[in-house]
Amino acid sequence: MKLMNPEQPLLQVFETMESEVRSYCRSFPAVFVKAKGYRLWDTAQNEYIDFFAGAGALNYGHNHPAMKQKLIDYLQNDGVTHSLDMATEAKERFLRRFWSVILEPRKMEYKVMFPGPTGTNSVESALKLARKVTGRTTVIGFTNAFHGMTLGALAVTGNTFKRQGAGVPLHHAVSMPYDGYLGKDIDSLDYLESYLNDSGSGVSKPAAIITETIQGEGGINVAGVKWLQRLERICKDNGILLIVDDVQMGCGRTGTFFSFEQAGIRPDLVCMSKSIGGYGLPMALTLIRPELDIWQPGEHNGTFRGNNLAFVAAEEALRYWENDIFAKSIESKGMLVNRFLNELVRLHPELQGEVRGKGLMQGIAFAIPGMAERLCKAVFAKGLIMETSGTDSEVAKIMPPLTIDEDGLRAGLHIVKESMRELYENPERN
Amino acid sequence: MKLMNPEQPLLQVFETMESEVRSYCRSFPAVFVKAKGYRLWDTAQNEYIDFFAGAGALNYGHNHPAMKQKLIDYLQNDGVTHSLDMATEAKERFLRRFWSVILEPRKMEYKVMFPGPTGTNSVESALKLARKVTGRTTVIGFTNAFHGMTLGALAVTGNTFKRQGAGVPLHHAVSMPYDGYLGKDIDSLDYLESYLNDSGSGVSKPAAIITETIQGEGGINVAGVKWLQRLERICKDNGILLIVDDVQMGCGRTGTFFSFEQAGIRPDLVCMSKSIGGYGLPMALTLIRPELDIWQPGEHNGTFRGNNLAFVAAEEALRYWENDIFAKSIESKGMLVNRFLNELVRLHPELQGEVRGKGLMQGIAFAIPGMAERLCKAVFAKGLIMETSGTDSEVAKIMPPLTIDEDGLRAGLHIVKESMRELYENPERN
Amino acid sequence: MKLMNPEQPLLQVFETMESEVRSYCRSFPAVFVKAKGYRLWDTAQNEYIDFFAGAGALNYGHNHPAMKQKLIDYLQNDGVTHSLDMATEAKERFLRRFWSVILEPRKMEYKVMFPGPTGTNSVESALKLARKVTGRTTVIGFTNAFHGMTLGALAVTGNTFKRQGAGVPLHHAVSMPYDGYLGKDIDSLDYLESYLNDSGSGVSKPAAIITETIQGEGGINVAGVKWLQRLERICKDNGILLIVDDVQMGCGRTGTFFSFEQAGIRPDLVCMSKSIGGYGLPMALTLIRPELDIWQPGEHNGTFRGNNLAFVAAEEALRYWENDIFAKSIESKGMLVNRFLNELVRLHPELQGEVRGKGLMQGIAFAIPGMAERLCKAVFAKGLIMETSGTDSEVAKIMPPLTIDEDGLRAGLHIVKESMRELYENPERN
Amino acid sequence: MKLMNPEQPLLQVFETMESEVRSYCRSFPAVFVKAKGYRLWDTAQNEYIDFFAGAGALNYGHNHPAMKQKLIDYLQNDGVTHSLDMATEAKERFLRRFWSVILEPRKMEYKVMFPGPTGTNSVESALKLARKVTGRTTVIGFTNAFHGMTLGALAVTGNTFKRQGAGVPLHHAVSMPYDGYLGKDIDSLDYLESYLNDSGSGVSKPAAIITETIQGEGGINVAGVKWLQRLERICKDNGILLIVDDVQMGCGRTGTFFSFEQAGIRPDLVCMSKSIGGYGLPMALTLIRPELDIWQPGEHNGTFRGNNLAFVAAEEALRYWENDIFAKSIESKGMLVNRFLNELVRLHPELQGEVRGKGLMQGIAFAIPGMAERLCKAVFAKGLIMETSGTDSEVAKIMPPLTIDEDGLRAGLHIVKESMRELYENPERN
Repeated sequence: MKLMNPEQPLLQVFETMESEVRSYCRSFPAVFVKAKGYRLWDTAQNEYIDFFAGAGALNYGHNHPAMKQKLIDYLQNDGVTHSLDMATEAKERFLRRFWSVILEPRKMEYKVMFPGPTGTNSVESALKLARKVTGRTTVIGFTNAFHGMTLGALAVTGNTFKRQGAGVPLHHAVSMPYDGYLGKDIDSLDYLESYLNDSGSGVSKPAAIITETIQGEGGINVAGVKWLQRLERICKDNGILLIVDDVQMGCGRTGTFFSFEQAGIRPDLVCMSKSIGGYGLPMALTLIRPELDIWQPGEHNGTFRGNNLAFVAAEEALRYWENDIFAKSIESKGMLVNRFLNELVRLHPELQGEVRGKGLMQGIAFAIPGMAERLCKAVFAKGLIMETSGTDSEVAKIMPPLTIDEDGLRAGLHIVKESMRELYENPERN
Repeated sequence: MKLMNPEQPLLQVFETMESEVRSYCRSFPAVFVKAKGYRLWDTAQNEYIDFFAGAGALNYGHNHPAMKQKLIDYLQNDGVTHSLDMATEAKERFLRRFWSVILEPRKMEYKVMFPGPTGTNSVESALKLARKVTGRTTVIGFTNAFHGMTLGALAVTGNTFKRQGAGVPLHHAVSMPYDGYLGKDIDSLDYLESYLNDSGSGVSKPAAIITETIQGEGGINVAGVKWLQRLERICKDNGILLIVDDVQMGCGRTGTFFSFEQAGIRPDLVCMSKSIGGYGLPMALTLIRPELDIWQPGEHNGTFRGNNLAFVAAEEALRYWENDIFAKSIESKGMLVNRFLNELVRLHPELQGEVRGKGLMQGIAFAIPGMAERLCKAVFAKGLIMETSGTDSEVAKIMPPLTIDEDGLRAGLHIVKESMRELYENPERN
Repeated sequence: MKLMNPEQPLLQVFETMESEVRSYCRSFPAVFVKAKGYRLWDTAQNEYIDFFAGAGALNYGHNHPAMKQKLIDYLQNDGVTHSLDMATEAKERFLRRFWSVILEPRKMEYKVMFPGPTGTNSVESALKLARKVTGRTTVIGFTNAFHGMTLGALAVTGNTFKRQGAGVPLHHAVSMPYDGYLGKDIDSLDYLESYLNDSGSGVSKPAAIITETIQGEGGINVAGVKWLQRLERICKDNGILLIVDDVQMGCGRTGTFFSFEQAGIRPDLVCMSKSIGGYGLPMALTLIRPELDIWQPGEHNGTFRGNNLAFVAAEEALRYWENDIFAKSIESKGMLVNRFLNELVRLHPELQGEVRGKGLMQGIAFAIPGMAERLCKAVFAKGLIMETSGTDSEVAKIMPPLTIDEDGLRAGLHIVKESMRELYENPERN
Repeated sequence: MKLMNPEQPLLQVFETMESEVRSYCRSFPAVFVKAKGYRLWDTAQNEYIDFFAGAGALNYGHNHPAMKQKLIDYLQNDGVTHSLDMATEAKERFLRRFWSVILEPRKMEYKVMFPGPTGTNSVESALKLARKVTGRTTVIGFTNAFHGMTLGALAVTGNTFKRQGAGVPLHHAVSMPYDGYLGKDIDSLDYLESYLNDSGSGVSKPAAIITETIQGEGGINVAGVKWLQRLERICKDNGILLIVDDVQMGCGRTGTFFSFEQAGIRPDLVCMSKSIGGYGLPMALTLIRPELDIWQPGEHNGTFRGNNLAFVAAEEALRYWENDIFAKSIESKGMLVNRFLNELVRLHPELQGEVRGKGLMQGIAFAIPGMAERLCKAVFAKGLIMETSGTDSEVAKIMPPLTIDEDGLRAGLHIVKESMRELYENPERN
């Protein structure tokens, strides 16, 4: 292995030194240096509009000025940076604001657990606790779910490619059909319920059912309000814990702070990460109904539970939720995106697109294989960062920072429209 | 659940809002606000000497001034903060320096994987890859090992209390005796080898053997140089991959950058986290022998693989390894600690202490139950932060930042000595 | 524990000495001494008609005279009784006749494996081989399936009560809806196929699908001919092995030697036991498509693979299949039972019975809980042995020896009718 | 697949029709027709002395005349042959005699379970019950153990070749070193105990420990009396159930009815099969300490639990245990064999044989690979049936019916001696 010379091409360091597992740097072949709001710049001073938002970790945009100032102040004052799970002032301030801005107004009573700073850590902690509380081992997840890459979370993830990466069989998990999986006319919970109610079904009573409200990675599949409500009722009736994985859909992505607020349900456990840290800094929470909080001290732990820079930014980020202005703006921008996508699909019927999603998690599912990937590649060439989702990468995803202004949104959508037009004229190119 | 009033006692917010799983805030009942080098301050302006160093995440001390300046500059210039695994300038700079300061001088050829920013993520990625490469599922770990809290890593962790937290049986792992486990006269690898060589042993050929060079959590158990060398040979002879989990012992804790350098071995996979980020920021690496790097793009991923603030600090931290001054200073401070501990044990024979460890990972194992915990409580009252380790918390651990100066070290050790004297006079107090 | 005295009541030896696990001796509280054809006698010289037929092990009735004579002759001549899997003349004769009477006329090419003398042994062997051949681990079974009580077979069994008896979680098995499980209008294979075709379904490609053609234990659920044919096609299209567990439904129970003949399918593996031994002697076969027979010698074994008394009786039993007289008689007796049951259900609409099954595996499913058990208890009091099936014992099962004559059949059915009438008049009695 | 013609060679039917899994018919290429006591005859009227005894299923020899007469009488009187677990007179008679001849004189209180007629069924039932009683899942087995081929029993079996046949990873089992495994000077229970007592060992408290007293399949490894007694004490002290698998060593093979009588221990559960049926007919028992008998009715079941022919022969076989004449004869024949083997090893020092075993389970372990197999092949050519054992087939096993007379024993041993001499002169031949 020889390292690169001064005349190296752009990505040579990465190609030489980094593992083959790297992925997004292949889709977006540029070296990024600077970012602000919904924009990024690379080493060649190209500017990009960001319709990806760190896969949901940048709901408040890149390098938000108010948070940035708080972070710099905190650093300059030598505030505690790393604290394991010791008490710090920064953590206390975050907890107070989380109470007053989020929990208290929603009349929610949850204990807050810091399970380690990633979404998969939060999911693992929720699964552990659900099993401990109920004394059962099975957890029901859904088709096309994505919950993380460590073995516990991977077991309730649907994607075969990712599951096979485990290298061991994944157990204690049963995959049930998500809303709409069996077609529009079948309520997939009929199926779930018949398994739960039948002592000959081969599926034992689970500790928990874990779900997303919209499956982002799984192809922007939206669970209906009634489906979520019925799921909650099934859980209650059967003494099964309901876990909502709000790692990607939480923090406003679908229009409300928690994505399940629209359904009016109260999960027993809620997993949060990605944008909870405000500035894109690693942080995660697990919310626990108080009566379920039977952890022994240290029964789940982790070195980076106390990432205080994240607490500082997270506290500041919660200001967005002090009133309903932000939520309303997401809604209106979501409607703009929706109108745009529907119009686009209407314009190009041959591309057989289907508009999916809500809030600022929307996209087009294409019946033509490879189409979504070609679209994302095309828009990148015009300065727009956008990704696919779905098991076969069949969905092109519109997922900008929630703080994007209308100009930015329109500029990005314009690129999509232009690229679609070109692909429409040349569907096999690229 | 009611929140706290203004006259609340110190930790009420945490006690009210945070999950029962919290642990260190119970051992160290103070709210910390500020930190610098080896010192912390709480809200009551008490000063503490830190002999815990973020459980190994703060080898370079709190808020190191050079790294701090780099971080502030980076923030002020709106450097990309969150980037998934896209290419960024900050990451490139880190990789270049990791090559020139660490890999190249040691003639090591490793691909670098960013598996998600925690130690358990790195371990999970290493286990996955080892199983993928070999097509086998079993991994051998060791008694009293600690590798992390997600289900894959937990399966190779020895601690029963932590394992039971899984809520499901943990499989594909076999626990073999660590160096010294069967007593001083028995080479525990005889046992391991007899199992591997016997087709009737009930243990199938493993994908990998994972080990720490010193078991920090497990009670400061040190693997001898010969044991490690023989372990490497056994792995080679049998086509088994050797994984060294250097999450806590790496980055200089035992005197060299990699803890296994002293044994001259070359693991197939190396897990790093904790201090690799320099400033206590979440970051992790998995080093992979190039021919084993058969990952498919995105086969393991995670939202916070691209924590650029950590890359910035990490790059700066590597300056410590540009020459051997730092390594030598760790060695001399380690000798100072060792002399001190041996003297202490000699002074108080009734406390039946045994000195363990090397470099700046040392401690005293007490035969008297509860003694180590009483000592840690006593020193905290005098302004020293120190923790126990071992399954029964039987070891008091001396684990300061590696950058501590001699004055700080002596001041902390003086507190230990005073507290020991008081406990010796009053062994049942507290 | 004291043993019984001479004045003991009837079952005292069993109640004192035998484990609580005993079951049928509770339903049929008598000590049986003698049996012939479809009749049994107890120690008090009571006579019983047998509509249970050893749960399918006595298709040719009790103590069939021709087989009996062969057995006595064999014993008297000191024919080898126990032979492990050594070659014996008795085994050779059985194999030759199995070829000429069963395989050859049906143009079937199967290798014959003797996996140990019980159904669960056969199922375990089939699952092992399917996994070995495909290199995959998952096996799909169906809701309400019953395949046996050892851990491998139990994993693909639906019944929760039996599964929990395992004492460990059962893995590598996915339970899919059997024909009719989702209601009459839904083809449950749509569901199965959507899981197989979707790489996000959370279910990996299985090694095999195992099914019964009628679920006897599961409540006499009949798989339709089209359903079985489609299942075979799905298996073929996906490179999945099809295992038919014909342990209970084979040897003519449904009218043909193999129960799947009516559907015209060719499973890759067939499990046989129960009546294959002819006389109720322990014996089992696994039939293997020749190209799948990649066993290493001794890779599956067992002490009682060579039960030569069973081979002797089994050879004789195959005479029944030398022409179609026997098959036709089963059909006509099955029609008689069917007419009777439908008439009975029509007579007592309040009992909400549903007639199920075919051939001489038929029964009535009752909507009223406990009804089937009360019926079986009532008929026993009148000298008829009959059992329930279904997870909630909701089905009363008519399952006489296939050799029963019309008089015997009518006599038994008459008892059913009388008992039904009494229960109808007194539904809550008993 | 075409079947054989009339001029076929000897084994053509088996080679054409039977699965590749067949094994003993390869070692002993003859078609056997008749057997009596310790002798067999093949179709070519060759006579063989049997030093294999159905792998332990024929302790009372082939076709024992008294049992044979009972069987013929029972058949002629149309005694119930197949009865599931219904009460029959034959079963009652067996139970009574088992009480009066076996349990009562030994002051043993055990409930008797009929778990299905094979050893692996008995082991599966014991493991299930141990897990149910304790609520734990792990079971500790030993290196080189053999307990059966269904998945539950296979999980506690040591042999890698057999384990791999499972096709799935085998869990809930930990393999500990058997007596002598770590060399003569190390008590392997030190190792076991250190794992049990250490909460960091990575092995959780097991439900049970399962052991053989001599590992027959594993290479005739004998557990010492003290080792067994210490094992019992460890189990008692830790609330772990002790299961003795006496399938092969029970029924007198080592000199007493239960093989563990010599050690004076009382297992919680005992597995019996093979010779318990007396005549080589499929039968198995699980003995259960009464307070552990918490089975629900039918929680474990099986079609062939009620093999009444086996009960009839088994009752008769127990006559051998009505006084100590039989036991003494085994002892004296065992001593004869032992003297012979030691003399043989002394005569041929180059063959590096080691005498192992006791009672009529003895053998020679050869250091030279392939030697034991060559010996077995050589003696077969001279009319003696003998098998190897051990993972690498390194042990030649002397295991005649216990009823063999001294003439037969000496005749067989003479063949061994002659063959050894020839092999000694020609070690590489064959």
